[in-house]
Amino acid sequence: MIDSRLATVAVVGVGIVGTSIALALRAHGIRVLLADNSGRAVDIAVRRGAGERLAEGGPPADLSVIAVPPASVPRTLRDAQSRDMALVYTDVSSVKVAPVHRARELGCDMTGFVPGHPIGNDVASGPGAARADLFRGRGWVLCPEENTRPEAVTLVRRLAELCGAVPVLMDAETHDRIAALISHAPHLVASAMAGALADAAPEMLWLGSVGLHDVTRLAAADPVLWTEILSENARWVSSVLSDIAANLVDVCAALQLAGTGDYSFIGDVTTLLRKGRAGQRRLTEAEHPDKD
Amino acid sequence: MIDSRLATVAVVGVGIVGTSIALALRAHGIRVLLADNSGRAVDIAVRRGAGERLAEGGPPADLSVIAVPPASVPRTLRDAQSRDMALVYTDVSSVKVAPVHRARELGCDMTGFVPGHPIGNDVASGPGAARADLFRGRGWVLCPEENTRPEAVTLVRRLAELCGAVPVLMDAETHDRIAALISHAPHLVASAMAGALADAAPEMLWLGSVGLHDVTRLAAADPVLWTEILSENARWVSSVLSDIAANLVDVCAALQLAGTGDYSFIGDVTTLLRKGRAGQRRLTEAEHPDKD
Repeated sequence: MIDSRLATVAVVGVGIVGTSIALALRAHGIRVLLADNSGRAVDIAVRRGAGERLAEGGPPADLSVIAVPPASVPRTLRDAQSRDMALVYTDVSSVKVAPVHRARELGCDMTGFVPGHPIGNDVASGPGAARADLFRGRGWVLCPEENTRPEAVTLVRRLAELCGAVPVLMDAETHDRIAALISHAPHLVASAMAGALADAAPEMLWLGSVGLHDVTRLAAADPVLWTEILSENARWVSSVLSDIAANLVDVCAALQLAGTGDYSFIGDVTTLLRKGRAGQRRLTEAEHPDKD
Repeated sequence: MIDSRLATVAVVGVGIVGTSIALALRAHGIRVLLADNSGRAVDIAVRRGAGERLAEGGPPADLSVIAVPPASVPRTLRDAQSRDMALVYTDVSSVKVAPVHRARELGCDMTGFVPGHPIGNDVASGPGAARADLFRGRGWVLCPEENTRPEAVTLVRRLAELCGAVPVLMDAETHDRIAALISHAPHLVASAMAGALADAAPEMLWLGSVGLHDVTRLAAADPVLWTEILSENARWVSSVLSDIAANLVDVCAALQLAGTGDYSFIGDVTTLLRKGRAGQRRLTEAEHPDKD
């Protein structure tokens, strides 16, 4: 099934996200052109069947997917646009406000750029970990602005659908607030918990339950990439995290007191546990809005 | 395969842990007698093939498994011993120091009591969720004291092995310190994160990745039972948690500053993420000590 308007797609950045998108597009017979600062990464992606190496000076692709870390999006977008790499552009980074703001400052053409964020990958990285179905059934947030061309939005929507994802439109600010809550803060919470295990004896850690592995799994992600993501969304992340940290400080104090035999504030612990169970249930029951 | 010395086992408390142990023993042809404050729970366990209802006034069982929440262990043990329910006793609660201390204060016979903690269940509860293989391949901590009879320890070790678990001996203080790190603090961290989701719009939560579900899964546990567990191990839990909370407060401050454009302390975020990744790797690589 080849979409007449999406015959050729250029993917800049063949990490797990870019390569997974490329693999999904290839499965639909779409021509995919691959670029990356790392020639070796492109080699791996090509060998995996994700497409062919992007050659300089070819005709513009229908769409270019800028699949680089958030802080690199503005410059990469500007460079791609200055070379007429494509007619329409989108990105995949998990922060939207700051990169969009800097892209505008750099003089990028914002009418043909649809900021995007396919949600699906948590900790894996590199083209070797890519999968054509990485985004199947998942949300793919699009944050077009007032002056974004409607046909550009339609094209990127089509990209999401070709990857099996569900496009969800919202403004960049809303996206970043939600991303802080459902992705960025959880990463830090997992890291803080996992960090407490760093000095533990292995024969003790072996006793850990599945639940311990679950709660710490996100901590496996790349610290440098995640420092960048958290920095780019620092205001919303710190806002979400300050409540979580304050709650932990409170229950810690209640338990310190309980340890001395004074159970005056033990009710605070129950309150947090109850609220946690309510939130967990809400998450488990959440279904995407279009679902019957 | 019937162990001559473990022909009859009484299980007091047919929640998920007691009933899972009963099912494992029944699979070995061992006679299991079931008791619980809830007659309905016993009915469910009996229907699931976990054993028969414990009758008053029978001969002592070879072993009684006190499978009740930690704060109820001392009184339940004393009552069982006063009725000569069994020759040897063990419990399954995830806190050891405080219940053992109170059992001694209540005048329980400590020479025939082997404090135990089979590790495996995280959030499920009730006899309906029980599984014969719940503890297969998992650790089962035993905390005998100086005056515990060696043959009692041998018998409870055998119980663990019949459930497919790996017995691990340590003192009660060491157990509680480890349990705080690998089970109790993680529960609170998961609850604090999940609590932040309690007021979020479902159409936003739907966007959450597998990682978000993982990090919050433990929050599904029973708040009342877990308040009891955390209270019983309050000193160690607060000790572990204070470091985690302090780290989150620190990175929160660093991100608040970053949100104003001042990245002076952003290195603290990377440090936490790096330490988290080291801890997560250490957990993933941890294998039980007897493994080749």
